[in-house]
Amino acid sequence: MKVAVIMGSTSDLEIMSQAISLLEEFGVEVVKRVISAHRTPDLMCEFAKSARAEGIGVIIAGAGGAAHVAGVVAGMTTVPVIGIPIQTKALGGMDSLLSIVQMPPGVPVATMAINGAKNAALYAIQILALSDNKLSEKLEAFRAEQTQKVLDATI
Amino acid sequence: MKVAVIMGSTSDLEIMSQAISLLEEFGVEVVKRVISAHRTPDLMCEFAKSARAEGIGVIIAGAGGAAHVAGVVAGMTTVPVIGIPIQTKALGGMDSLLSIVQMPPGVPVATMAINGAKNAALYAIQILALSDNKLSEKLEAFRAEQTQKVLDATI
Amino acid sequence: MKVAVIMGSTSDLEIMSQAISLLEEFGVEVVKRVISAHRTPDLMCEFAKSARAEGIGVIIAGAGGAAHVAGVVAGMTTVPVIGIPIQTKALGGMDSLLSIVQMPPGVPVATMAINGAKNAALYAIQILALSDNKLSEKLEAFRAEQTQKVLDATI
Amino acid sequence: MKVAVIMGSTSDLEIMSQAISLLEEFGVEVVKRVISAHRTPDLMCEFAKSARAEGIGVIIAGAGGAAHVAGVVAGMTTVPVIGIPIQTKALGGMDSLLSIVQMPPGVPVATMAINGAKNAALYAIQILALSDNKLSEKLEAFRAEQTQKVLDATI
Amino acid sequence: MKVAVIMGSTSDLEIMSQAISLLEEFGVEVVKRVISAHRTPDLMCEFAKSARAEGIGVIIAGAGGAAHVAGVVAGMTTVPVIGIPIQTKALGGMDSLLSIVQMPPGVPVATMAINGAKNAALYAIQILALSDNKLSEKLEAFRAEQTQKVLDATI
Amino acid sequence: MKVAVIMGSTSDLEIMSQAISLLEEFGVEVVKRVISAHRTPDLMCEFAKSARAEGIGVIIAGAGGAAHVAGVVAGMTTVPVIGIPIQTKALGGMDSLLSIVQMPPGVPVATMAINGAKNAALYAIQILALSDNKLSEKLEAFRAEQTQKVLDATI
Amino acid sequence: MKVAVIMGSTSDLEIMSQAISLLEEFGVEVVKRVISAHRTPDLMCEFAKSARAEGIGVIIAGAGGAAHVAGVVAGMTTVPVIGIPIQTKALGGMDSLLSIVQMPPGVPVATMAINGAKNAALYAIQILALSDNKLSEKLEAFRAEQTQKVLDATI
Amino acid sequence: MKVAVIMGSTSDLEIMSQAISLLEEFGVEVVKRVISAHRTPDLMCEFAKSARAEGIGVIIAGAGGAAHVAGVVAGMTTVPVIGIPIQTKALGGMDSLLSIVQMPPGVPVATMAINGAKNAALYAIQILALSDNKLSEKLEAFRAEQTQKVLDATI
Repeated sequence: MKVAVIMGSTSDLEIMSQAISLLEEFGVEVVKRVISAHRTPDLMCEFAKSARAEGIGVIIAGAGGAAHVAGVVAGMTTVPVIGIPIQTKALGGMDSLLSIVQMPPGVPVATMAINGAKNAALYAIQILALSDNKLSEKLEAFRAEQTQKVLDATI
Repeated sequence: MKVAVIMGSTSDLEIMSQAISLLEEFGVEVVKRVISAHRTPDLMCEFAKSARAEGIGVIIAGAGGAAHVAGVVAGMTTVPVIGIPIQTKALGGMDSLLSIVQMPPGVPVATMAINGAKNAALYAIQILALSDNKLSEKLEAFRAEQTQKVLDATI
Repeated sequence: MKVAVIMGSTSDLEIMSQAISLLEEFGVEVVKRVISAHRTPDLMCEFAKSARAEGIGVIIAGAGGAAHVAGVVAGMTTVPVIGIPIQTKALGGMDSLLSIVQMPPGVPVATMAINGAKNAALYAIQILALSDNKLSEKLEAFRAEQTQKVLDATI
Repeated sequence: MKVAVIMGSTSDLEIMSQAISLLEEFGVEVVKRVISAHRTPDLMCEFAKSARAEGIGVIIAGAGGAAHVAGVVAGMTTVPVIGIPIQTKALGGMDSLLSIVQMPPGVPVATMAINGAKNAALYAIQILALSDNKLSEKLEAFRAEQTQKVLDATI
Repeated sequence: MKVAVIMGSTSDLEIMSQAISLLEEFGVEVVKRVISAHRTPDLMCEFAKSARAEGIGVIIAGAGGAAHVAGVVAGMTTVPVIGIPIQTKALGGMDSLLSIVQMPPGVPVATMAINGAKNAALYAIQILALSDNKLSEKLEAFRAEQTQKVLDATI
Repeated sequence: MKVAVIMGSTSDLEIMSQAISLLEEFGVEVVKRVISAHRTPDLMCEFAKSARAEGIGVIIAGAGGAAHVAGVVAGMTTVPVIGIPIQTKALGGMDSLLSIVQMPPGVPVATMAINGAKNAALYAIQILALSDNKLSEKLEAFRAEQTQKVLDATI
Repeated sequence: MKVAVIMGSTSDLEIMSQAISLLEEFGVEVVKRVISAHRTPDLMCEFAKSARAEGIGVIIAGAGGAAHVAGVVAGMTTVPVIGIPIQTKALGGMDSLLSIVQMPPGVPVATMAINGAKNAALYAIQILALSDNKLSEKLEAFRAEQTQKVLDATI
Repeated sequence: MKVAVIMGSTSDLEIMSQAISLLEEFGVEVVKRVISAHRTPDLMCEFAKSARAEGIGVIIAGAGGAAHVAGVVAGMTTVPVIGIPIQTKALGGMDSLLSIVQMPPGVPVATMAINGAKNAALYAIQILALSDNKLSEKLEAFRAEQTQKVLDATI
């Protein structure tokens, strides 16, 4: 299963590329697209409705401000959607966070921290690893290495 | 031209009916629909894309929490959209407000106060009154009466 | 019909000029004024009361902090008013946003995102386009071009 | 010198009457008016511009939400204005507070706590007491009594 | 694979039982436990470390205030963790939300809306449905029924 | 009557000197002191208790973070106190604002905008001008000049 | 060593009595006083300056809104001060929290959760227990019992 | 008794070293460790459980965002824990603050200001000084010097 990484604007790429890189490090096939809920609604609908059939197992969507793409895509597919609130200049990303996390009952979006692209990738990997032993092993190794780095830190 | 009043859930009706009543008092034809950005995305798309052709001049959309319907509809039509952030239990409607008002450049939504359904109706009327003298006169009369009520208040 | 763009201070011009430019690109005649609710109240009153008679169809008002000009002007005219909360150093514009959006029932202000000058212009154009076919066509073209830019984006 | 107590709506009276009562207890002459920045702008202007001439020494203005009356009145007179942010249902009064306190340089409003009507009255009295020995004595007595009540509290 | 539903206190049960019920409606086996990050840290560690081996595929953790259990459990397992911020009396759940969602890079928690227990269950089901066709069909049916309810709503 | 300008730390001087300069431009005698509620409590008490006797008519107090000096000084004198919340790095001054403005009933502090030192000076002048015709005339002239500057602005 | 429990008003007693009860359960001698930073500043100074000499080992201070008593007392003694932000009607206690926790460098206050009176007592006990083995044993027993209650909870 | 200073990441060292330096100036033995609640949970448990036995009298823990280490460590020891919310890029540290301070009843964490490392050290010293006369004298001297610096400040 592939992971799709979509973003509302190329200006989000600086953050979103952290998700793409990490997924690729884990050997996960990534579908990457610029899809705006407001400027390309048709593309958004097409993408969301065909995601499952195209072998996408998890969708990672990042957006800032009135960040609607994650929620609306989630309403058009049963593929798990992970939302990344992008930090904003005026309100620091509180607007993005609330726009993504406060979904009404019936259509969930798994929300990460503001600018939490790396964790979005890791969460997608955790989901895929449930039925992929190789990925699961890589994940355990990643975690162990991460732990070791903290243990090795000296102050 | 008609005004459409749409809401994400019938639970928003208590607030949204204030807009409907006021529009009807002004003799404006109202199209009222329950349309959820997340639970009925197809209906939302159909509605938004056909709004102009169906003679709708202004769309009023109310939603709470991760309130996406106003923004996504606005991306699918050039009919002016007015958004009403519905008050929420946990965060008072700050989530609804930011989800509606913080639209990215290119697709505007005219945001009212939290629970500001009455003002949404008045703003729709102000828009329509620009090219409708009768409505304009009614509006001036409404304003005058409103002013008089405050002037008559005694404390 | 003309669009008025007013601002509380020349320091708001950096943001507000985005609205002016876009309106002018669309061929809309723009009346631009520095009008402070607090420092030039008489000018504000004169402006608001004569707006309709002077052929102004929409008023765009930007202000920061305790941003009162949009709301008070809206109380003195039935011309639709669009408010732009200007970002502030201390609170990011949350003060401006709440000062503009939380209008009491009876006098609406259509609030845009913090620093959302471009969207204010677009919303004014959407209003005027309701009774102006040429403007409506330009708007559709603008939207199509905007969509195309996102579709053309490569990552 | 008299103290004016103005409020945007009779719904604010429950809070604002605390200011009126306390001023009257101190023997201060109170001018009380319902004046809305948005619904009665002409009344607001007349009131503000004639305040000084009518012997008003301090203006206390309470309003909720997009609370503009204190700031706009302050821009039309050099009589000291005290603003009371009225608590709101959705945002608790944070909207009222920021709308009143975040005044731009040049036109100050002395802001009290949310619903701080009693303190508004006391502050007006403190101002008047600067040139009124009798009032000053009453104020000192009030303070002493207030202190004594806390000293007498038993737990 | 089972889904674990854990909560910091029985006082969270009113909300958390919504997740349990929905999972059970879908025929998912639920492991339910009261586990406090602060009052039963040893239990938390044991639980987290043995989760995968005990056949748990997703962990749903709800907590309020300084809500640590989701994040700390997530650090001790690679099983996907879903966090539910429980609404709090003083701050409405903004404290719970930020405590859960703002995880540092390396250890993700999929955060739901405040009190979003129902969505947590649905998200767990979406994850499990990726490799369980029967569950996937039930989910599609649930979604269709949910959509139909909105379509049938009359106002 | 003199005006005292006190601040919790010399780091606040950049902002507070705006108040001092403006008061001096108006010919008001200024007493300026560094007084910390936490580091120099005895000095604070002495200052507050002797303020009235030393001919101080208004006290302007600026502080940031847990900004206590304005409120505690206000509790030790009946001289009107004006509080200036100083902007803070972490929270933008929301902490300072709430610490100063949310005074309990009985002891008011007149709160200005975050970093609103200039307005604090103007408010002090407005208070003193109530019984000082010369100052009142200067104030009217200042206001007129301020208005003229906005009227002269060109965009 | 005794623990002092002070509060700004008897209205805080409902919360503060939870600290008193718990301390008494642990056999700690409690000095309880109503001391307002604003209404009884002299009492506050006397209390703070004599605390150490009177055998007080920890001071617990609760207050709401512009909550100054904990910080100002902390500036007058080197006895550790624990602050309890009391929940407020308008802002939920965010004002109290920031007023207490955001102390400037040099004078610390140990801040508890909003309404966290029970934890204030426990923290005082933890401090005293560092040099009191009996208290330390009681504390360990309390903790063990608390853990057991969670372990015994059934859902 | 020693003081432990722990932090979630070496990126917190810039702030946390202020605590370390000040403790060392006072001659307090400092145990300094990088311990992440999420990346090194086992280390965290070991550390917390052995702290008391290793002669640690106070634990100072700093972390940012979803800052869990202080609270979870506090649940595993009865040694007093002091939490320092580290400022964050997106939300200024409001996330860190609420994650640390809003602890549930039963397990207290003494929370300092955002980035309040210096005060954390001082509070630890105040605790240790209760049973260490030499430290107490140094503390009084430190305070006196701090006061003198403010008294000597000239503006």
